[in-house]
Amino acid sequence: MQATTEATQAAAYTPTDRTVPTRSADRASYDKELVHAILDEGYVCHLGFVRDGAPVVLPTLYGRVGERLYIHGSTGSRPLRMTGQADPGLPVCLTVTHVDGLVLARSAFHHSINYRSVVVHGVAHEVTDPEERRTALDALVDHVVPGRAADSRPANKKELAATAVIRLDLDEVSAKVRTGGANDDPEDLSLPHWAGVVPLRKGYDAPVPDAGLTPGIELPDYLAARGTGLAAPMSGI
Amino acid sequence: MQATTEATQAAAYTPTDRTVPTRSADRASYDKELVHAILDEGYVCHLGFVRDGAPVVLPTLYGRVGERLYIHGSTGSRPLRMTGQADPGLPVCLTVTHVDGLVLARSAFHHSINYRSVVVHGVAHEVTDPEERRTALDALVDHVVPGRAADSRPANKKELAATAVIRLDLDEVSAKVRTGGANDDPEDLSLPHWAGVVPLRKGYDAPVPDAGLTPGIELPDYLAARGTGLAAPMSGI
Repeated sequence: MQATTEATQAAAYTPTDRTVPTRSADRASYDKELVHAILDEGYVCHLGFVRDGAPVVLPTLYGRVGERLYIHGSTGSRPLRMTGQADPGLPVCLTVTHVDGLVLARSAFHHSINYRSVVVHGVAHEVTDPEERRTALDALVDHVVPGRAADSRPANKKELAATAVIRLDLDEVSAKVRTGGANDDPEDLSLPHWAGVVPLRKGYDAPVPDAGLTPGIELPDYLAARGTGLAAPMSGI
Repeated sequence: MQATTEATQAAAYTPTDRTVPTRSADRASYDKELVHAILDEGYVCHLGFVRDGAPVVLPTLYGRVGERLYIHGSTGSRPLRMTGQADPGLPVCLTVTHVDGLVLARSAFHHSINYRSVVVHGVAHEVTDPEERRTALDALVDHVVPGRAADSRPANKKELAATAVIRLDLDEVSAKVRTGGANDDPEDLSLPHWAGVVPLRKGYDAPVPDAGLTPGIELPDYLAARGTGLAAPMSGI
C-alpha cells in the first residue's frame, strides 16, 4: 500500500501549524467524517485568496468528491483567472460555517454562538482533464440538491468552454465546533439575567415552480422533503 | 460641512476597482441602506487576512455602529494579535453572506443560488479608547440579540484586559444580490426537468434556558419572538 493511499484512508487530517488554533483548542477536530459532514451541509463557502498583497474573501458554491473540493465559475472571474494564470497554483483558504445557536450568558463577556466550521488551507489548481471537469460540475450541482445532476441538461461545449473549474485537496484541514450552553463564571450564576441558548437552523419554504414550467412536470421526489420544513411564518428576525 | 461628514451622509459607497465585480455587475450595489441591512441580519462574518503570504479566512462575530464594524476576540488570537502589532493596521476583507434560495434550472449550467452578500475591503485597526471599546462590545452583544447588552453584566476590568477590539470602517464596500428564478436559455424551456426555486431561511427553535437558571427569571421579551419560528420539525436537509 502506498503512502498516499494510506493518507487518504486515515480517519483524521494531520494537524499543522496553521490548523492548530491558538484559542479554544478543545473545539478543534481533524476528524474526516466530521469535516465531510460540515462541508456537505453547506451551500456556500467563503474563498480567500491574495490579490495585490491584500486579502479577498468571496462567497461561492462548491462541491466535494472524496478528498477534493471543487469550485467553478466563469473563466473571466478573478480567482479563477488567477488560478489559471498561477503556476504552481493559487494559495487559498476555504471556510464553511454553520451557526447552530445563540448563546446568552449572564455576563456580556461569555456571550457566544454555537457553530460548526471547517477551514481548508491549500493551493488551488485549475482542472483541465475533461472527465474530472464533468465529475466536478456534477458534484457542484448535486451539492445544492443531491440527485439533481442526473435530472438536468448537462453542460454543452459552449458552456464548458466558458466554465473554469478549480480543485482544492482536503489535506490541511480542521473543523471547529462549539456546542452546549452558557459558560458563566460561578459568581455570576445568581445574577438576574436570563441565560440559555436559542437554537438556530435552516428552514425551507415550499418550492416555487418556474412560471414557464411545462404543464405536467411534477415536483421531483428529491425536492419534496424540502417543502415541509416550515409550517408557520417565521418571526421577523 | 466637512468632506468626511458629507461622505458619511451619502446614500451610497463609492465604487472602487476592488468593489466593481468582473462578473454579474448588474447584481452589485453600493447602497448603504442595503449594505447595512445585510450586515445587520448576519451572525457571523468571514474575516480574511494575510499571514506569511497566505490567505486566512476565519468566521467571527461582529457588530456595527453606523459606518464602523467591530470585531473582538482574545488578545491572544492571531488576527487580533496581528492587528495590534501592525502599524498602520491590518489589511482585511470581511464578507457576510445570506443564502436565500436554491435555483434549479433545466440546464446544469444555469443552476444557482439566490443570495445577498456584502464584501468590505479595508484596514483594521485596534481600538484602544476605553469608551469606544465599551460601545463596540455592546454592539457585538446587541448584534446577536438586540437589547441584550443592557440585560447582562458588563465586562469587568479583567475581561476588558483580555479582550482585543478591532475596527473596520465601512468605506470600500459592495453588496451583491441575486433574486428571482431560473435563467434558462429559451431553447431549454421545453426540457422535461422541473425548474424553479426552493426558498431558504433561518429558523429558530424555542429558547432553552440554562439548567442553573435562577427560578423565577422569565424569558425576556426580546427573545420571545425567536421561539415561534419553527412550528414543525425540519426535514432532514
